[in-house]
Amino acid sequence: MKSLIVLAHPEPTSFNAALAGAARESLQSVGHEVRVSDLHLRGFAPDEHGRHYRCRKDPARFDAQTEQRFSAAQECLPDDVRREVDDLLWADFVVLQFPLWWFGMPAILKGWMDRVFVYGKLYSGGRRLHTGVCRGKRAMLSVTAGSSAEVCVPDGQEGDTRLILWPVHYSLHYLGFDVLEPVLRFGVRGGLEGEAAVEQRRYLAEQIAEHRRLFSDLKAIPSVPFNAADDYDERRRLKPGAPVHSPFIRHRPDPIRSQGNCG
Amino acid sequence: MKSLIVLAHPEPTSFNAALAGAARESLQSVGHEVRVSDLHLRGFAPDEHGRHYRCRKDPARFDAQTEQRFSAAQECLPDDVRREVDDLLWADFVVLQFPLWWFGMPAILKGWMDRVFVYGKLYSGGRRLHTGVCRGKRAMLSVTAGSSAEVCVPDGQEGDTRLILWPVHYSLHYLGFDVLEPVLRFGVRGGLEGEAAVEQRRYLAEQIAEHRRLFSDLKAIPSVPFNAADDYDERRRLKPGAPVHSPFIRHRPDPIRSQGNCG
Repeated sequence: MKSLIVLAHPEPTSFNAALAGAARESLQSVGHEVRVSDLHLRGFAPDEHGRHYRCRKDPARFDAQTEQRFSAAQECLPDDVRREVDDLLWADFVVLQFPLWWFGMPAILKGWMDRVFVYGKLYSGGRRLHTGVCRGKRAMLSVTAGSSAEVCVPDGQEGDTRLILWPVHYSLHYLGFDVLEPVLRFGVRGGLEGEAAVEQRRYLAEQIAEHRRLFSDLKAIPSVPFNAADDYDERRRLKPGAPVHSPFIRHRPDPIRSQGNCG
Repeated sequence: MKSLIVLAHPEPTSFNAALAGAARESLQSVGHEVRVSDLHLRGFAPDEHGRHYRCRKDPARFDAQTEQRFSAAQECLPDDVRREVDDLLWADFVVLQFPLWWFGMPAILKGWMDRVFVYGKLYSGGRRLHTGVCRGKRAMLSVTAGSSAEVCVPDGQEGDTRLILWPVHYSLHYLGFDVLEPVLRFGVRGGLEGEAAVEQRRYLAEQIAEHRRLFSDLKAIPSVPFNAADDYDERRRLKPGAPVHSPFIRHRPDPIRSQGNCG
């Protein structure tokens, strides 16, 4: 097994970096070969932009998908993208390690998706979802959050964090990945002092020990469910009676039932 | 009225740039003073990182919230952040103009949130949501997507795009903004040729004309509903019977009703 851990945190001694290190050691202990892509350390450029492309289909006007497809075909992808694509295609298992900032990934990791999920290489109209390039590979999000676990539950004020991650899960599924349920580590706070800092250190050490256990037995982690291709009709609308696995999809109200008189 | 349009697209002649221009002219025509922050043109750095901070509370270890609060208090925020904060606090109405990439904002705009929504300046534990710094201001997302409108509906395969934008809406609400319903322009594709390119140009021209009309009458645009502070109990859990306005929040199953025997 070959594993890639993509780390998106600006501080090399951060708790996120420690979790990436714990996952690496744990995976190695069960026989994985592991690469770590620390995006800041690698100097990965976060923003998709024409300046990154050394060969261009249209030097006058930048269209991301057009240039991604062209550079993939001409084998002249930007060097930092090339390296990430190679690691992604090399790996059987991919972990994205990041802190939740404003209910999403840090910009550098969003830019990793924008630039590394190359059109014409990682997906195309004919190769996506159930025919995706990354079929047979697994991916998983490992996320820290400052909020406490109590407010990140389905009826908590900050909502169900697992559902907030849906667009990332769906993007990985779009490439063909089997997505494992994420690991969420709440209550991760910086800038504490005195007794609170001591208590936080104890808590983070426990979390790291738990992380080691988790990554030593991937088979115990269930997959995130997605709809199957044939849950949709030819207009790509959800068929009546199909299950719903996205927080962004819902069935149309049944025109008879919604009248409330169907007995 | 003072309006700020934040534009996140790497191509100066893009359809996104044209929409930003149309919004600017339309707002000016009804008397607004307008500033446009073209993030790529301004050279905005997309990734939150210690290297941006010229004064540090802890030079040895970077914690984003700690350094944001310190730099805000010492009035030594990074220059590019300072400029964006000034424009944000200057404006009564803020538009974020961006293409939907991988079901989210481009990295540079996520980085604008990560860096410009400064802890200790734009929000704090005591100033957020209904006591937020930006109370009385309005914000709105203007979004383009390559997918067709038909698959971005509630029962479409790509899900309800309006709900995908929820984390951004909630972040703006967190700062205190009144968030207007977004404008979504689907079927925006690059790289077309021949008849399809002619048809696309006609379609985009129509969309721009509609954009001008929309921004000339902001009062016609409804606000996105959010839960009120007292919809939550002291543990920040949704109270029974409270409305649900987030796709990530749901009521706990009623322990009696869920047994199915309550008559």
